Amino acid sequence: MGGDNAPEMVVEGTEIVRSLHPDARFILFGDEGRIAPFLARFPRLNEVSEVRHTDQAIAADEKPSQALRRGQDSSMRLAIDAVQNGTAGGVVSAGNTGALMAISKFVLGTQPSIDRPAMISFFPTRRGKTAVLDLGANIECNADNLVQFAVMGAAFVRIELGIDRPTVGLLNVGVEELKGNDTLRSAGQALREVDFGFEFAGFIEGNDICEGTVDVVVTDGFTGNAVLKALEGGSSMFVSFMRQAFQSGLASKIGYLLAKPAFQQMRTRIDPRAYNGAVFVGLNGISVKSHGGTDGEGYANAIGVAIDLVRGRFSERIQADLEQSYVIPQELSEDARRAAIS
Amino acid sequence: MGGDNAPEMVVEGTEIVRSLHPDARFILFGDEGRIAPFLARFPRLNEVSEVRHTDQAIAADEKPSQALRRGQDSSMRLAIDAVQNGTAGGVVSAGNTGALMAISKFVLGTQPSIDRPAMISFFPTRRGKTAVLDLGANIECNADNLVQFAVMGAAFVRIELGIDRPTVGLLNVGVEELKGNDTLRSAGQALREVDFGFEFAGFIEGNDICEGTVDVVVTDGFTGNAVLKALEGGSSMFVSFMRQAFQSGLASKIGYLLAKPAFQQMRTRIDPRAYNGAVFVGLNGISVKSHGGTDGEGYANAIGVAIDLVRGRFSERIQADLEQSYVIPQELSEDARRAAIS
Repeated sequence: MGGDNAPEMVVEGTEIVRSLHPDARFILFGDEGRIAPFLARFPRLNEVSEVRHTDQAIAADEKPSQALRRGQDSSMRLAIDAVQNGTAGGVVSAGNTGALMAISKFVLGTQPSIDRPAMISFFPTRRGKTAVLDLGANIECNADNLVQFAVMGAAFVRIELGIDRPTVGLLNVGVEELKGNDTLRSAGQALREVDFGFEFAGFIEGNDICEGTVDVVVTDGFTGNAVLKALEGGSSMFVSFMRQAFQSGLASKIGYLLAKPAFQQMRTRIDPRAYNGAVFVGLNGISVKSHGGTDGEGYANAIGVAIDLVRGRFSERIQADLEQSYVIPQELSEDARRAAIS
Repeated sequence: MGGDNAPEMVVEGTEIVRSLHPDARFILFGDEGRIAPFLARFPRLNEVSEVRHTDQAIAADEKPSQALRRGQDSSMRLAIDAVQNGTAGGVVSAGNTGALMAISKFVLGTQPSIDRPAMISFFPTRRGKTAVLDLGANIECNADNLVQFAVMGAAFVRIELGIDRPTVGLLNVGVEELKGNDTLRSAGQALREVDFGFEFAGFIEGNDICEGTVDVVVTDGFTGNAVLKALEGGSSMFVSFMRQAFQSGLASKIGYLLAKPAFQQMRTRIDPRAYNGAVFVGLNGISVKSHGGTDGEGYANAIGVAIDLVRGRFSERIQADLEQSYVIPQELSEDARRAAIS
């Protein structure tokens, strides 16, 4: 029931996913009277779907604490409960982000070995896409949190992008080891000394996000949220300037018509729908947030992310990575450093 | 002597400024043997310029502490000394940013009433431009620092944009008064309760930067630096995608030729050269950092910023704003709140 165009957009997105994943089954939580007419449009989806009726829904402006307390029979809560009790493999919602985070954390619980769950999502880059976390779950983070974000981010791209040994960078104001504050320097040191099954690329800077320098960018939730929204705003400004430019005269308009297919292809590369699906990582279960303003295609991408993570046994992999990590012996790492210098 | 194409680019930029500001005088610090041939190209610039020779220059990779200790006769140091002793109104450099900040702070000193100087610069927005600070001078900031940044940012846009009562927003992860950490909430409260001669717009989010929601965006130097570089990277990615799109086939290429003038006009709106000139604010003197990779036109913009601030008596205005500010009586502000609610 969440998002600007629910439940229609949700049903349309689910139908797209059904055609791509013939073995997937769906449970739609919400107002059956409003869902059924849309579901009736897609007989094959109807066959593999089940509607669990509730007339309660978390409002977009409801406070997380209130949603947690009073939303026990809400569609969001029932969907998350279904993950907790094993009825569903994962939950996808386009509703209230704060409520989804609070209820997911409360119902599913934080994974052992993880102190703080985090929000992760892909960003478009010159080379493809890069996962960035935390996007806003934790305003302040310590070094352990950042190290755990790195491990979760690596597990995420391993499943989503099929990269066996991803590269991970820690966002800072410069690349030198002494840059940043104590938290960043401690996290950087831990990531250099311990092998968690990914390549630690060291500190990176803001421009490295869209450069695609690394597969995973790790940062605190405040910076991640600011950067995510700044890039969304910048991208939207750019598209709007471009539209204005093409409408600024007859020659430009004709030029636009000629270049339109290429122009559309370019917009596809930064289409927010293609990057839809922010995952709340570090929980005992898969919880995915869809953008509220997306359409069926965007929502389908968010469901796709959830399916990948369920199939890839995401939470178990994070646990395994943390348990299998080992400290690189100091002499060894110094040898390695010397080798790198010479 | 700083930047990728000095001293040629510096001399070219100075010539552009000379033609715009006939009463300005210039002192060029650096290797006279290398500067003179470029200066000889512009006889009228030569008339209003003076070269102060030194064969020492701060290297691009020199540590600020080292630059401060060993660069006593460097072109950068001598230029900043000239501001301190009143020979020059302000200094502009395309050299080592860390060194420029360290030497400017040491030589010019921090203004009374300001605890920490900060870096400010304009960003392109849908509506024009917005000044953002701090862009990296202070990794960690307390509430007082943020309030002082707001005052300095307002004084900056008052002079640069001629806006009498600018709007100022505090970057956060949401707009509600309870969002963020204690530092942000305290700064937000102080800015609501005290009238510093600008309109406090409350908390804003990352997307508000390019939306142009406010004239000044205040944030800590870590977030500001990450956002600045992320937007630079995003903008460069966008331009590169656009170039690829237009080169992807014959129709696109013809389309590009037709739309070229409009397309160029659009690029002008986000041209980094137009936004060149980051100012180190909060010092007893004007110190401006030009991008190292800019050209003469970009460098001229950085000098223009310095001239505006010198003429606008920037440091004195900040001091006056801080002294004239008064606390809004609690009853009054509560009345105002009630009025706003009803």
